[in-house]
Amino acid sequence: MPLDTPKDPAIAAKADLDPQNFALANCIRALTIDAVNAANSGHPGAPMGMADAATVLFRNHLKFDAANPDWPDRDRFVLSNGHASMLLYSLLHLTGYQDMTLDQIRNFRQWGAITAGHPEYGHAKGVETTTGPLGQGLATAVGMALAERALAGEFGGDLVDHRTWVMLGDGCLQEGIGQEAISLAGHLGLGKLIVLYDDNSITIDGPTSVSFSEDIPARFKACGWHVQSCDGHDGRALDAAMEAAKAETGKPSLIAMKTIIGFGSPNRAGSYSVHGSPLGKDEGALTREALGWSHEAFVIPDDLAAEWREIGARGAADREAWEARLAASPKGAALTQRLSGDLPEGYDAAVSAARDALFAAPKKAATRKASQMALEALTPAVPAMIGGSADLTGSNLTRVKAVDTQYTRETPGRYIGYGVREFGMAAAMNGLNLHGGVIAYGGTFLVFSDYARNAIRLSALMGVGTIYVMTHDSIGLGEDGPTHQPVEHLASLRAIPGLTVLRPADTVETLEAWDIAIRNRTVPSLLALSRQDVPQLRTEAGSENLTAKGAYVIRQFGEGRDVTLIATGTEVAIAVEAAEALAAEGMAVAVVSMPSWELFEAQDADYRALTLGTAPRIAVEAAGKFGWTRYVATEDDVIGMTGFGASAPIDRLYQEFGITPEAIIARARLVTGH
Amino acid sequence: MPLDTPKDPAIAAKADLDPQNFALANCIRALTIDAVNAANSGHPGAPMGMADAATVLFRNHLKFDAANPDWPDRDRFVLSNGHASMLLYSLLHLTGYQDMTLDQIRNFRQWGAITAGHPEYGHAKGVETTTGPLGQGLATAVGMALAERALAGEFGGDLVDHRTWVMLGDGCLQEGIGQEAISLAGHLGLGKLIVLYDDNSITIDGPTSVSFSEDIPARFKACGWHVQSCDGHDGRALDAAMEAAKAETGKPSLIAMKTIIGFGSPNRAGSYSVHGSPLGKDEGALTREALGWSHEAFVIPDDLAAEWREIGARGAADREAWEARLAASPKGAALTQRLSGDLPEGYDAAVSAARDALFAAPKKAATRKASQMALEALTPAVPAMIGGSADLTGSNLTRVKAVDTQYTRETPGRYIGYGVREFGMAAAMNGLNLHGGVIAYGGTFLVFSDYARNAIRLSALMGVGTIYVMTHDSIGLGEDGPTHQPVEHLASLRAIPGLTVLRPADTVETLEAWDIAIRNRTVPSLLALSRQDVPQLRTEAGSENLTAKGAYVIRQFGEGRDVTLIATGTEVAIAVEAAEALAAEGMAVAVVSMPSWELFEAQDADYRALTLGTAPRIAVEAAGKFGWTRYVATEDDVIGMTGFGASAPIDRLYQEFGITPEAIIARARLVTGH
Repeated sequence: MPLDTPKDPAIAAKADLDPQNFALANCIRALTIDAVNAANSGHPGAPMGMADAATVLFRNHLKFDAANPDWPDRDRFVLSNGHASMLLYSLLHLTGYQDMTLDQIRNFRQWGAITAGHPEYGHAKGVETTTGPLGQGLATAVGMALAERALAGEFGGDLVDHRTWVMLGDGCLQEGIGQEAISLAGHLGLGKLIVLYDDNSITIDGPTSVSFSEDIPARFKACGWHVQSCDGHDGRALDAAMEAAKAETGKPSLIAMKTIIGFGSPNRAGSYSVHGSPLGKDEGALTREALGWSHEAFVIPDDLAAEWREIGARGAADREAWEARLAASPKGAALTQRLSGDLPEGYDAAVSAARDALFAAPKKAATRKASQMALEALTPAVPAMIGGSADLTGSNLTRVKAVDTQYTRETPGRYIGYGVREFGMAAAMNGLNLHGGVIAYGGTFLVFSDYARNAIRLSALMGVGTIYVMTHDSIGLGEDGPTHQPVEHLASLRAIPGLTVLRPADTVETLEAWDIAIRNRTVPSLLALSRQDVPQLRTEAGSENLTAKGAYVIRQFGEGRDVTLIATGTEVAIAVEAAEALAAEGMAVAVVSMPSWELFEAQDADYRALTLGTAPRIAVEAAGKFGWTRYVATEDDVIGMTGFGASAPIDRLYQEFGITPEAIIARARLVTGH
Repeated sequence: MPLDTPKDPAIAAKADLDPQNFALANCIRALTIDAVNAANSGHPGAPMGMADAATVLFRNHLKFDAANPDWPDRDRFVLSNGHASMLLYSLLHLTGYQDMTLDQIRNFRQWGAITAGHPEYGHAKGVETTTGPLGQGLATAVGMALAERALAGEFGGDLVDHRTWVMLGDGCLQEGIGQEAISLAGHLGLGKLIVLYDDNSITIDGPTSVSFSEDIPARFKACGWHVQSCDGHDGRALDAAMEAAKAETGKPSLIAMKTIIGFGSPNRAGSYSVHGSPLGKDEGALTREALGWSHEAFVIPDDLAAEWREIGARGAADREAWEARLAASPKGAALTQRLSGDLPEGYDAAVSAARDALFAAPKKAATRKASQMALEALTPAVPAMIGGSADLTGSNLTRVKAVDTQYTRETPGRYIGYGVREFGMAAAMNGLNLHGGVIAYGGTFLVFSDYARNAIRLSALMGVGTIYVMTHDSIGLGEDGPTHQPVEHLASLRAIPGLTVLRPADTVETLEAWDIAIRNRTVPSLLALSRQDVPQLRTEAGSENLTAKGAYVIRQFGEGRDVTLIATGTEVAIAVEAAEALAAEGMAVAVVSMPSWELFEAQDADYRALTLGTAPRIAVEAAGKFGWTRYVATEDDVIGMTGFGASAPIDRLYQEFGITPEAIIARARLVTGH
């Protein structure tokens, strides 16, 4: 090894524990120092502290092949403390991921580079999920491990057999979602999930003792995890711990690694000052000296570079063997089809049959019930679908015949009881979908989209087709009252870029919404569904998915238009009722059903203009008025809510809050001057 | 006791453990059955299972005086599993809270009643906080306990000495926020916080074994709690456990009570079917029989009613003694002033002085820095203020000289390290403010308002003046990238009814925003603050708080108006720059600074019309365009974001996303035809 002796005796002592691992880890530390200094911003502390462990992991344990980053049976590696992104980028560069060039490292945190401040899914290969919002990496990894087990159960361990590795810090464990993930993983005994905890005793505000003093290993044990502790700078101890974690197959594993943040920096190691700001030129030089690293910035000596590239190629033989098994297996073609993300052949027919059945026998039903009907019809045709609920199965109606096997500790199933853990569920669903081979959907009440909100945002940011089934979508839920009645939620979700919000009006639109959601694997969909019954308004048979247009004229009374009523979901029926009355008064009225603003905006300008018309418009939605001025002149033209709901039976609420045909009629008379 | 012998021998056995407690608890059970049946909706299971424990608590431990529900030194009781609301309403009725009449109980979950489906703060006395969204009751209670200790530290234990009691179920412990609260309470050793856990092994989806198998007592122990377990239907055991919990002063206490959900119902006890639906007439009758309860619906026999009323009056002597101590204490007047919620005398002068200082020496500063300056100036004048951050103190700049004593396990201080627990922080701040005597503010990044969102909603729903300090409020934060850059957040927060969102443009507006937030004790305020510097645009001395108008003309170029530029926060300076250029071209331009949409909407129509003008308008905000059509004709008139941000230095981001004077100028030329 070409390593100079570390100048700092404490560091030298650590280096002596496993000199080769230490030298390899120094490559990560050096690149981190250099990239953060070049960007003049970033987080050097965690990568420097976790470099030894990451080296052991990539060198001896992680199953991957840098030349084939999309190999489906690779281990997944999730850096949950995403601010440590330079750790990941260094590893990807060193092991030879083609897209992670030295130029990318040099351009850390710059416009157009794939080396964003936090790892962004879709930018660089080897970034399995977007991390940065703390706790979510872990929860997403739980979803990946759930997917692996489900697919292994279906296709066999010879084709699906990989682990999910997570690195995380204190922040991920302070965030509540961390506990949701820990609890669920322990409950389901996800034995192939292994967490490396960077226990560096430092958070941004100073020592963790400011806010964090619990016994982490004991907490994990209480949740059914296999727990080990070790020195995070001792390559051999880390190796043994990882080996033991792999051997434990019935429980997820925690390895609590005692580390020194900013390891190597003479003046800043072990201090929160190294967490989130560059070492700078002088301290960088001192650190190189302390570590025994005599190379220029961004220079990795040939022998270490070669060794890292060997590590990157370590999995090639495994991958080839897997490919051979896949080719030879009777289940190979099916798995390949599944992993392609394409829908199975019978899917279109299932949609058509379900559609025809609705037209043949129109049904009055809550749209949550319509959702259940759609799921009953479609899930048998899409074995990739895996459902669940945050402990509201009987309310969300997410469980259907084809998705009726419970996912338990003993056996993977198609239905996951996520518990009262909306955020954990949402992030796990992202992980399930990121993994590939499954299409995850899950339910809760729309109001509790708040709890899951940042994971919904990440679905959109990553471009992952997670399907959110959000029932009890308005004051229409009645007696449970304002804490359970969404008011601002539709607006707040429509405000998220890249999310498709669908609020179907009846059984047909609900089926169409599901069809959209299932097909769209790169955009998340959120279905807002009612507790209360609505009539089937779409009764005229036809094969076109009108919901996919976002909005369309569902009723036309008279010739031309005196007024256009735009409504969504359960309020479309109310708008139709009002329109009938207005028509009886001689007005020409169009009722536009607008199940999705985003899909409507994606239509061409002519269609949009034609649909909205030039007559005065009134919007009807049992929700806050915020945002509706996109389509109507003023918020006075919105028949909706101005404040929170209340606890009372539904009819009384609609009456008291004035979301009635009478209110629509009155406004229509006013705006038209009729 | 007039109790018939319970028909069910298992129930009789439980009753024998403490017959009197059992009889009193049956009053709760009976009222619950009757009210839920009358409403034909609601949750009977949990109140029936927790009735025995609640009876012991109110009978022997809770310090309260039903005739004086606002007694400041009362114990706080928080029903975190709010769906069990009939437990609380029954207790309030039975103990003689004046407003909780039998009529209210009969009108459970009806329009206009104070007996909402979930307990709503401000409806009935004795409801200390709104609960229902699970986990938040516990986290809010942590805030109450923090407030108690802070006030006891300041005013002495003879004037402030009360406990915070929480009842909760599995859901509260599955939600991540529950763990955030547990961890923080254990860390700070909140010895006067006592949690009664309704361990009934049932959640909505079935037995808890579907999703929940961890060792709860062990988890609490790992977090530094004092832990006991007991039979939740054994009055004497419960009494002993509560006594022991009170005796433990260095740690918060958990009492894990094994209970039977729907206790007493022969066919539905112990099953999830009793969680959320009425027993109905027949099962209700069978339950009465099984419990040995022979009274008509809504009838409480006189002797039991009398005993309950005695319980309600039990604290009267304590209260009187407290009042005497308060009157006699040298600190009495100060405490009374503090609890009044009125700002101290010196406050106005502090605001004026800070304002004058800014006009005397204008400063270019990030608005987060301006916020720190405002806090430096105002916190010495408002000793009630207690600050904190979710581990981003150095970024949020929430810690200032007067608020520089750390709140630790040993000593309460004015600064709380909430840890990386945004949701727990927000709920705790609600609890601090609900408690009275303190004004809590706390910081995180604006993007992480997502994590805390439902607690922000509850601040608004309850009408509690929690102050959210949300820095790094746009792509202007730069390199940390899209996971850290809020885009949809301003819109999504503006959509929440009853929340005042403030995005100040400079040091003066930031001071004004703080003044608004501090004064407004019944409306939550959220300050969106920048990482990057902005010039001080308000340089003309004046004492009027213009921010309080929500929007105002900050610059006028030329006579009349060809175009109005509306901007918020850091973009006001960009709009001014554009306006100067447009003015140079001969256009008449008004620049409207709009720090708060909500405050602007509260102005009279004339002022609003005058401010917005009739000329074409352009809005400028480095955020999503959603919602801006309230003020401009179309989203094309918004200079803002259409998608997520990116990781790069700030100047590059503003350039790439087109939030520039040039873009404003181009649009202005287009809309004015100049």
